[in-house]
Amino acid sequence: LFGCFDVFIFARADGTSRWSRVVNALDVKSSIFSLKIWVRGRVHAIRSKGKTCFLILRQQIYTVQVTVFVGDKISKQMVKFVSNIPKESIVDIEGRIEKVEEQIESCTQKDAELHAMQVFIVSLSEQRLPLQIEDAIRRHDSADGLAAVNLDTRLDNRILDLRTATSQGIFSVQAGVCKLFRDTLNQRGFVEIHTPKIISAASEGGANVFTVSYFKSSAYLAQSPQLYKQMAIAGDFEKVFTIGGVFRAEDSNTHRHMTEFVGLDLEMAFNFHYHEVLQTIGSVLISVFKGLQSQYTAEIEAVGRQYPAEPFEFCEPALVLTYPEALAMLREDGVEIGDEDDLSTPVEKHLGRIVKSTSKYFLYKRLLLEQPFIPFSLHKYSNSYDMFMRGEEILSGAQRIHDPEFLIERAKHHNIELDKIRAYIDSFRYGCPPHAGGGIGL
Amino acid sequence: LFGCFDVFIFARADGTSRWSRVVNALDVKSSIFSLKIWVRGRVHAIRSKGKTCFLILRQQIYTVQVTVFVGDKISKQMVKFVSNIPKESIVDIEGRIEKVEEQIESCTQKDAELHAMQVFIVSLSEQRLPLQIEDAIRRHDSADGLAAVNLDTRLDNRILDLRTATSQGIFSVQAGVCKLFRDTLNQRGFVEIHTPKIISAASEGGANVFTVSYFKSSAYLAQSPQLYKQMAIAGDFEKVFTIGGVFRAEDSNTHRHMTEFVGLDLEMAFNFHYHEVLQTIGSVLISVFKGLQSQYTAEIEAVGRQYPAEPFEFCEPALVLTYPEALAMLREDGVEIGDEDDLSTPVEKHLGRIVKSTSKYFLYKRLLLEQPFIPFSLHKYSNSYDMFMRGEEILSGAQRIHDPEFLIERAKHHNIELDKIRAYIDSFRYGCPPHAGGGIGL
Repeated sequence: LFGCFDVFIFARADGTSRWSRVVNALDVKSSIFSLKIWVRGRVHAIRSKGKTCFLILRQQIYTVQVTVFVGDKISKQMVKFVSNIPKESIVDIEGRIEKVEEQIESCTQKDAELHAMQVFIVSLSEQRLPLQIEDAIRRHDSADGLAAVNLDTRLDNRILDLRTATSQGIFSVQAGVCKLFRDTLNQRGFVEIHTPKIISAASEGGANVFTVSYFKSSAYLAQSPQLYKQMAIAGDFEKVFTIGGVFRAEDSNTHRHMTEFVGLDLEMAFNFHYHEVLQTIGSVLISVFKGLQSQYTAEIEAVGRQYPAEPFEFCEPALVLTYPEALAMLREDGVEIGDEDDLSTPVEKHLGRIVKSTSKYFLYKRLLLEQPFIPFSLHKYSNSYDMFMRGEEILSGAQRIHDPEFLIERAKHHNIELDKIRAYIDSFRYGCPPHAGGGIGL
Repeated sequence: LFGCFDVFIFARADGTSRWSRVVNALDVKSSIFSLKIWVRGRVHAIRSKGKTCFLILRQQIYTVQVTVFVGDKISKQMVKFVSNIPKESIVDIEGRIEKVEEQIESCTQKDAELHAMQVFIVSLSEQRLPLQIEDAIRRHDSADGLAAVNLDTRLDNRILDLRTATSQGIFSVQAGVCKLFRDTLNQRGFVEIHTPKIISAASEGGANVFTVSYFKSSAYLAQSPQLYKQMAIAGDFEKVFTIGGVFRAEDSNTHRHMTEFVGLDLEMAFNFHYHEVLQTIGSVLISVFKGLQSQYTAEIEAVGRQYPAEPFEFCEPALVLTYPEALAMLREDGVEIGDEDDLSTPVEKHLGRIVKSTSKYFLYKRLLLEQPFIPFSLHKYSNSYDMFMRGEEILSGAQRIHDPEFLIERAKHHNIELDKIRAYIDSFRYGCPPHAGGGIGL
């Protein structure tokens, strides 16, 4: 039994029960009550009075009540000792699982508690905590007047902030997005690649690039895996994806700009039309959304307790709008916009609201503006697409020009110095299938 | 049929058949011969004489012979046109699948060929190739006097080098390693995290760190995800892994040093002993090895054709040696080595040969030398381990000190300035479970 510190009692709502080893070992669900177990967890809260002490034990997003009462196994000194354990300390507890009469509202484990027989400290926390976990998980829009924790305090004490059910949930969902993205693409025959981050030339323009001291010389941090994804296509990988760091020296403090973020990128050769890629991206994302909803229910709920949000809705297959269709919808809703105007952020959000009132999710063809390396079908529309979620662009992608002479023609048209993109152009000199792709921030 | 450019004929040896859409759609395996199909591929080789032209079409690591013979559907001019298509161009071919009498040794598809009826060029290659694919896949130790391609030429023309069966195989196996590593760890309840690459302080010592210009200030590139993995453990993630870029400013030209590489790292809390982690790492790697052998046979064979190697062998569970056991084995084999000597690279390889002659794979406890932040059980051995493959260290890992006072004591002992590692020490002030981990380069 000593080998089983992890216990059924924190069984997950979705039935995957991270702590089911005892149950699995004994295979007797009916005899769970009165079972004596060992469990390791963190002291989430303690409340004591005389001969009784109630301790809430936490493992990640799950909590259980532990009673430490004076009796056969527990002395008065022991109750006092336990009462003084600093919150956030890690303890090992031997106890008996008991059914409770009344639901325990303050714990995720509501129908059972643990009656402690032994308590050991594994790792002691300092007595004074720079932030309280219960403050850090309070609803951001709470009007109860209780303390909130500001962002600086959270970041200065990230270790503690990571322990909130909200952070635990966010990190799990984040891992889930990557897992679902990869699993879906692997099933469709995509190959994962890893692209270089330190590069020798500022291949995508010098303005937003970070410079690295590289021994006696200088190098740069890659602003996207774009060139390398395309090289992989020209190198016959057919369908590739990559998840990794992307670096942009943008000194912008908005919720959509970061100097470093994790990008999920894909690129694929297509046979007839770039819409094959647009449809692939749409269905990959839908498969991620569905996977999250079915496999990460508890985690999404945990985040939702602090940051309530309407459930995310989408239609399947993804709704696809062309640029002229979007303009028509906006005009019908009273927005004045010209045929060759780009969509501003407020207008994008407006369109999102219109779409939301009918269906939930969309992709569309983009106006050909400053996009030198993207082919186009009609004279003013490029073969590109943006994807929107809750009214904001989350992904942009496009077909790429795979013919070196056409690339040169477009570069000249946009007054780009050919010397700076020579290696890029040369990548397409030995045959390259038509291809398109896209990228999305984690 | 026009929608089915990808074809059964390149079915993979392992039965997963990337190009099985036609077969699946028609569901008639017996009627494959005489089937008319469209296929897109690259012109791998062309040989023509009068009214006949033999073309070898390539898709990734698979090749098939296509005949273009003058007849009902093909004119003399057509044969001439096809004969002049530059190698590496991408073509669409309509043809009939026919059984062949004699095995086609020069193709991976040996028992069938395609009789072309129509040929279109999708993307034209330049006539003159800077390297020939057949030269680039020749065995590196070939003694037939034929041209080899040197590394500079390969790297200057990476697009072409990526198209060799060897490169295709290497990239697939590489993707497989990451997939198997992740799948195994996900099954075991690990959470994937993404750690920052641009960091504000050279937290692991200043010597081998790259400096980044960060707006008006300076930042650094992370030399490992170590600190962040440990923060995740102190933050209650229990078990974490990460795959991502690692940056080391080491100006070393050896096969074991790179300024940038992809690291596979894991860290986990344990209950009783750091050997729980050592055993987890051992069995995770064994599961990767087994997955590669069973799921990537064709790719490993493709690489083996250019770089022959003995099949990799290992025992299951992994063989674990302690440092004194390793010393005893070396001494028995005539190596003079003191109880407190570290193992040099030649001695490590020697030990590898001894182990290989008995069993195949091992991990062991390391001598406590310059390892300030690792606890130790006996006075001269640290709680750490190295993993060896074919006689060379591929992974090192250790238990970490999770008690701030013990960390301070060890830092003082090693004359490390406490101010520089303050944030690291503070990570353990609010309770942290005992934990250990390790990292391995992709």
